Amino acid sequence: MRNNLNRKILLASRPTGTPDASHFKMIEEQIPELKEGEVLIQSVYLSVDPYMRGRMSDAKSYAQPYEVGEPFIGGIVGKVVDSKNPKYESGQFVDGRLEWADYNVSDGSNIRRVNPDLAPVTTALHVLGMPGLTAYFGLLYIGEPKKGETVVVSGASGAVGMIVGQIAKLKGCRVVGIAGTDEKCSFLTNELGFDSAINYKTAEHLGKTLREACPSGVDIYFDNVGGSVSDAVMNQINFQARIIICGQISQYNLEKPEMGPRVAGQLLKTSSLMKGFIVSDYAEHNKEGLKQLSEWVRDGKIQYRENVVEGFENTIEAFLGLFRGDNLGKQLVKVTEE
Amino acid sequence: MRNNLNRKILLASRPTGTPDASHFKMIEEQIPELKEGEVLIQSVYLSVDPYMRGRMSDAKSYAQPYEVGEPFIGGIVGKVVDSKNPKYESGQFVDGRLEWADYNVSDGSNIRRVNPDLAPVTTALHVLGMPGLTAYFGLLYIGEPKKGETVVVSGASGAVGMIVGQIAKLKGCRVVGIAGTDEKCSFLTNELGFDSAINYKTAEHLGKTLREACPSGVDIYFDNVGGSVSDAVMNQINFQARIIICGQISQYNLEKPEMGPRVAGQLLKTSSLMKGFIVSDYAEHNKEGLKQLSEWVRDGKIQYRENVVEGFENTIEAFLGLFRGDNLGKQLVKVTEE
Repeated sequence: MRNNLNRKILLASRPTGTPDASHFKMIEEQIPELKEGEVLIQSVYLSVDPYMRGRMSDAKSYAQPYEVGEPFIGGIVGKVVDSKNPKYESGQFVDGRLEWADYNVSDGSNIRRVNPDLAPVTTALHVLGMPGLTAYFGLLYIGEPKKGETVVVSGASGAVGMIVGQIAKLKGCRVVGIAGTDEKCSFLTNELGFDSAINYKTAEHLGKTLREACPSGVDIYFDNVGGSVSDAVMNQINFQARIIICGQISQYNLEKPEMGPRVAGQLLKTSSLMKGFIVSDYAEHNKEGLKQLSEWVRDGKIQYRENVVEGFENTIEAFLGLFRGDNLGKQLVKVTEE
Repeated sequence: MRNNLNRKILLASRPTGTPDASHFKMIEEQIPELKEGEVLIQSVYLSVDPYMRGRMSDAKSYAQPYEVGEPFIGGIVGKVVDSKNPKYESGQFVDGRLEWADYNVSDGSNIRRVNPDLAPVTTALHVLGMPGLTAYFGLLYIGEPKKGETVVVSGASGAVGMIVGQIAKLKGCRVVGIAGTDEKCSFLTNELGFDSAINYKTAEHLGKTLREACPSGVDIYFDNVGGSVSDAVMNQINFQARIIICGQISQYNLEKPEMGPRVAGQLLKTSSLMKGFIVSDYAEHNKEGLKQLSEWVRDGKIQYRENVVEGFENTIEAFLGLFRGDNLGKQLVKVTEE
C-alpha cells in the first residue's frame, strides 16, 4: 500500500493567459519519517477547483498565491496510513487542505475526520465540503431567496452551481441554469429539477433566450463565470436584485483585463446589490451549513454528480479541463483505491 | 404677491446625449380656482437635482419618467397663499414634490409643513431633505462605517457628497473627497474638515494621488459620479469594502453606454459589496434620519453650502449647470422672496 516515493505537483512558473502543462512540475521525494504528533495521510481523492487559477498568479487576492517551486495545495480526502498522533489512527478517513501529493504529513491541525458511513467520502470535497458551503452561504446569506423569485445560476452544472440551483428550488424559486453543453443543460432540467437551462454557446441571442426563460425578470443571479454571460443577465435584473459573485471563470485566463458594460448604473436604477465573497467569510456558520446540507443529501433532496479522473498523474490535465468546460459535475482525481 | 399667470416648465422632448434648452418648454397658464380641500402654494425655492436627468429618458428605472408635454416635478419649498384645506393656512411654509411652476395646487397629500423657526426653509431641500437623507441612509445603512476606516466620496462638494463626508467624520473615519475644482477641494478640507480632497481634473495620475491620500486603502466608496473616477477608486478597495452607488452623473448624458473595467472580479477578490439605492428604499427610517440630521445641524456638527440662482426663468440653466459642475453646494433656484 505504501512505497517510499511521494509524487508532488509544484508550480513551475506563473502563467499570464491560459495555463498549460509547462506551468506545472511533478517531482518525486522520499516520504519523511513521522515526528511525535504527526499523521501520514495517503491521498485517495483530490479536488481540482477553478479558484486555484487565481492562486497561480501573484496579484493581490483573498487567497495567498502559490509560490513558484512549491506544491499546489487544495482539498484532499485521504486515509491515515501511519500515526504518531493520539487523535488519529491508521485506516481512518480525513480531509483537509493538503499538498497535491500521494502522501501528506500533518500535525492534525489542518485535517478533520470524515465518516465513510454517513456519505461517500468524496462528498467531503463537494456537496458536504467547500463547494457545497459556498453554494449554501452565497445563495442564502447574500441572495436571501424568497418563494416565487427567479434565480439564475451561471456555471450551473459545476460543483457549486448544481447545489445553488437545488437549494433555490427547495426555497420555492424558479431556477434557470446557464451551462455550456446540451448534455449539461439536460442534466440540470431532467435530473436536478431546474425549471429551465440555457446553453449559452448555442443560444442565438442569449438576452432573448433569458427573457423567455425568466418572464418575471431576474431576482437573484448567482454568478460563477462573469463576462458576456453575466452582461446578458444584468440586463434582466429586477428591482432590488441580488447578484452573488462567486467566480469569474471566463476572466481568469485573460492576458489582460477585459472591458465590459458598466454595471453601476444598472445597480443604481434597480436598487440592486452585487457582492463578492469567499466561503471562509462565513466560517462561523460552517456547522449549520454542513448539518443542513447533510440532511438534504440524506433525504434525497439534493443530488450531486462527480466527474472522476483516475491517477495522480492526470491531476494537471483534470485541472486544465475545468477551463475548457470538460467536466459535468464536481471534478475529482482518484489517486488510489479507498 | 399673486398675479393670475403661472409659469410652468415642461419636458419638450427627450434628449439622447447632453440636454440643452431645446428639451424644455416654458408656458404660462391661468392659476386654477381651488376646490374644497385644496391648497395653493407659491414656489419660493426650487431644487434642481442630477437624478432628474434620468427621468427625462424613458428607459426603465426606479423613477417614473417625465412625460413629454408634462411639467417637471421636483422638490419645492413654497408658501401657502390660499387654502380650502383645514390643515393648512396662508403664510405657512410647506415642501413637497411639486411641478416646476410659480404656483402649485395640492390636495395636501404631497406636501408637509416646514417650520421656518427650526432652520432656514431651504434646508428642507438639502441637508434636512432628500439629499441629506440620501447621504445618511447610503453611508450608514449600506456603508456601515467603522472608526478608523477610510471613506472616499466622489462628487464630494455636491448636495449629497458634502453631507456624506461630514457624517463619516462624525463616525471617526478618514475622509477623502473627490471634486472638480480647486475651490471645491479647498471648501471640503478647510470648511468641512475632510482629511484630503482631490481635484480629479488636474490630478496627473488619479490612482497615484488616491493611493497617497488613502495610505490604508479604501474601505467605503460613496459614488456619485461613476466612470473613470470610480475606476481609479475601485483599484484601491480593501477586503470587505462597501461601494455605495448613489449617482453616476458622468454617465447620464452619454449617447450610448460606456464600456469600462469589469468590477465583478475586484468585488470577488476582496469579498466586497456594491449596492445601488434610492432614498425611498429607506422611507421607514425618514423620521430617525431627519431627527439625527437636525440635531447635527443645530449643534454645528454638519455645515452646508447653497448655490442659489435667482428667478424661475433661470431654472433650466441652473439644472444644465449641474452637469458642467458649475455648482459648489446644493443648487437651488429662488423663485420669489420668502
